Amino acid sequence: MIKSPTNLKRVLMAPGPSDVEPRVLEALSRPTVGHLDPAFMQILHDIRELLQYTFQTRNELTLTMSGSGSAGMEACVVNLIEPGDPMLVCVNGVFSRRMADVAQRCGADVSIIEVEWGKVFLPEQIESALEKKPAKVVGVVHAETSTGAGQPIEEISRIVHEHGALLLVDAVASLAGMNVDVDGWQIDACYSGSQKCISCPPGLAPVTFSDAAIEVVENRKTKIQSFYLDLSVIREYWGTQHRYHHTAPINMSYALLEALRVVKEEGLENRWARHLANHKILRAGLTAIGIDYITQPGYELPMVNAVAVPAGIDDAAVRSQLLSEFNIEIAGGLGDFKGKAWRIGLMGFSSTLSNVMLFLSALEKCLADQGAKFERGASIAAAAHTASQMA
Amino acid sequence: MIKSPTNLKRVLMAPGPSDVEPRVLEALSRPTVGHLDPAFMQILHDIRELLQYTFQTRNELTLTMSGSGSAGMEACVVNLIEPGDPMLVCVNGVFSRRMADVAQRCGADVSIIEVEWGKVFLPEQIESALEKKPAKVVGVVHAETSTGAGQPIEEISRIVHEHGALLLVDAVASLAGMNVDVDGWQIDACYSGSQKCISCPPGLAPVTFSDAAIEVVENRKTKIQSFYLDLSVIREYWGTQHRYHHTAPINMSYALLEALRVVKEEGLENRWARHLANHKILRAGLTAIGIDYITQPGYELPMVNAVAVPAGIDDAAVRSQLLSEFNIEIAGGLGDFKGKAWRIGLMGFSSTLSNVMLFLSALEKCLADQGAKFERGASIAAAAHTASQMA
Repeated sequence: MIKSPTNLKRVLMAPGPSDVEPRVLEALSRPTVGHLDPAFMQILHDIRELLQYTFQTRNELTLTMSGSGSAGMEACVVNLIEPGDPMLVCVNGVFSRRMADVAQRCGADVSIIEVEWGKVFLPEQIESALEKKPAKVVGVVHAETSTGAGQPIEEISRIVHEHGALLLVDAVASLAGMNVDVDGWQIDACYSGSQKCISCPPGLAPVTFSDAAIEVVENRKTKIQSFYLDLSVIREYWGTQHRYHHTAPINMSYALLEALRVVKEEGLENRWARHLANHKILRAGLTAIGIDYITQPGYELPMVNAVAVPAGIDDAAVRSQLLSEFNIEIAGGLGDFKGKAWRIGLMGFSSTLSNVMLFLSALEKCLADQGAKFERGASIAAAAHTASQMA
Repeated sequence: MIKSPTNLKRVLMAPGPSDVEPRVLEALSRPTVGHLDPAFMQILHDIRELLQYTFQTRNELTLTMSGSGSAGMEACVVNLIEPGDPMLVCVNGVFSRRMADVAQRCGADVSIIEVEWGKVFLPEQIESALEKKPAKVVGVVHAETSTGAGQPIEEISRIVHEHGALLLVDAVASLAGMNVDVDGWQIDACYSGSQKCISCPPGLAPVTFSDAAIEVVENRKTKIQSFYLDLSVIREYWGTQHRYHHTAPINMSYALLEALRVVKEEGLENRWARHLANHKILRAGLTAIGIDYITQPGYELPMVNAVAVPAGIDDAAVRSQLLSEFNIEIAGGLGDFKGKAWRIGLMGFSSTLSNVMLFLSALEKCLADQGAKFERGASIAAAAHTASQMA
């Protein structure tokens, strides 16, 4: 009856989950302790300290939600929004669209501004929207996993605060892979996922709230609609009271702590540089065989490489062949890009020169098997050349 | 800076999390694969099959929510309830009180009936409440972790359905440790947690919905307030469409599958019998040194032994000594029982004769250190006698 494979080792080059280092997997498998054990309280304390480092924040309310990145998104929205509160969401992909959906479900008066998928917002677009209609919260996705676009945050933040709103930023794909400066950019609420550039297995969502955001939570007139995501209580579990709220995911927390230690040991700047370098090498290789990015030029994310499926190539067949012949997972397009895009993740432990070379070699074979015309070996040559230039 | 202990091995005798078998921890640490990998789809399929076995149901909508048991509770409530829907909640402890809170937060018109903590409901109490005011959903906790009381479900189910309502049952503590017969008892929605009698680490909440419950979800007039817990979409991820919803907790799913295999290999009936036997042995030992259960006689749960802290004994000091001298974790009282009760868990892999004997020996020492008067060794003698009689 039971047929699950138990000994698979993939090369994870979709935009999450990313490959997990052996030392993190080892931490994951340590014996479970209780959720109120003083030893576990120490683990939560250490996770907070390392998350503060990673988010570049001194926010005391820095912790993990016991769920995926989407639980982090929902936690931020339901804690900040009361029924009827105006919220502006900047939609340019699946995850910003999801944020608008989450806000509508919790009774926000949602306004949406949109740009074409793959593009980013100009600060003046947000300014003009806020002048038409003020908002309590402005939501924006820093790194749109569905389109590969990186949204500059700093100038938007200035405008949002000038208009008296709070800034909510989705950093699911970006955190620990590029600069996410929560305090420097004055982000009020920010969430991420454990399984992207942090390279922990999926299941935890780091979240941080500024003092201004906490004040909003503390001065609500209505109860937060979700008990499970109620930060006013969860913060008391993470605080010195250790008040029971729910049973925290113990072993996942061991793994996250170890993964964050890896981040700290490498150093944020080194980690960003590594992500950027491998992105450039991959890009040189793809460009050499005529594969184009679908993202607005200049705003391509280092960790999510979104490219157009070449004309005449069967999207699903290539991804299936990569998986079956090479154990490489990449992702197809989501939403507007379904069937039209490949998304190649270079996240955390997966962002290596070896993976880039392996992927390009494998992709060339898959394309050639479908009769595509290109100069064989060109991607590898260009990638190697770029890598050598950068060394 | 980082001071987390990394090599602790506790004996987990609180009412969850329970000790995790080495083969489950080993499964947890296998290399992560993607959430849309065909190999992972097979794992979800196998988890569903084994959850159907464990819940004793043929319900197709049988899956896990990516969160703790409280996420399972909230998922059941928010999927079944629309704003203004009448819901009756039977409150006799922390978790039933929590269910009422969750229902209120999602806009239900909540009615509550209460009995004293530690007691269970008589079917006629529910009948009388439903005759006064009909409900769409009746919520009841099968095994109240906060009081150690086991609520008989079968007769209540008959009454609930005669009154045209759906029956929602919390089986967080009971599933896989005593009989939970979802189809036989006609339960419409049931949830549990991975970390109790299933003995997987915390982080997943098994949930099952009957056809009648699915019909309610499918015929809602309003959107489910939570995106993260929206079963109408999550079931399409678990179904043949494999539609992306959120990134499932991959490694936790490996562990749950392995833990459910252990349940199947032991067999449900054998597992229930083991839980009951170790409960009787513990009980004989505690009784012999004058420690009394606080639960209504005849309704004591085998997996949660809730007893009164003896007069003159310092509750917290005993628990702290058990942890520091013996690495044994038990729990104190919650809510109304705070400071007045100990809750001794005998769940899943923690429910062993060895643990019972170790705990009784350790407890005798802690009590003696506080100057308690009792016949030394009496608990061990009584427990051994009972164990031999049952063998």
